[in-house]
Amino acid sequence: MSPRVEVFVQLKPGMLDPQGAAVEHALADLGYEGVEGVRVGKWITFEVPGGDTAALDARVDEMCRRLLANPVIERYRFRVVGDGASEGPA
Amino acid sequence: MSPRVEVFVQLKPGMLDPQGAAVEHALADLGYEGVEGVRVGKWITFEVPGGDTAALDARVDEMCRRLLANPVIERYRFRVVGDGASEGPA
Repeated sequence: MSPRVEVFVQLKPGMLDPQGAAVEHALADLGYEGVEGVRVGKWITFEVPGGDTAALDARVDEMCRRLLANPVIERYRFRVVGDGASEGPA
Repeated sequence: MSPRVEVFVQLKPGMLDPQGAAVEHALADLGYEGVEGVRVGKWITFEVPGGDTAALDARVDEMCRRLLANPVIERYRFRVVGDGASEGPA
């Protein structure tokens, strides 16, 4: 089984998240009181060729920095499942 | 501490995911060979008022069905952390 990668991308805590604010208002309008701090981020999944775990982690981290996230305004973490599990930076 | 909810939303397996296809091509263009099955979904996080765990689960599941996901074309799962952990339907 090819390793499966899950990447989680979210705007950094200080950054305004208009989509999150819109969802928060919509939830309140629907009657869900007290929902706070809604953040809408990305959940990206894919399969990668297997191999050395440390090398794979480094490769996925590079993919995140180069394409999947914008490290200036977003934070990301990832995990690789399949050929052992690992967790990237929070 | 208020329970923290994480919701994961993704297009159902049969549904075309153009954003995922675009990311897959971009990764290949950057030299990341062999990346397959890219799916770009949503990762939504928020805090909710605490309370009975089963009731909270039901409430979050309802939020997903009514607003956070489109059950016709998307699947979702969620977990509640803080006041005990639980996991919604896959």
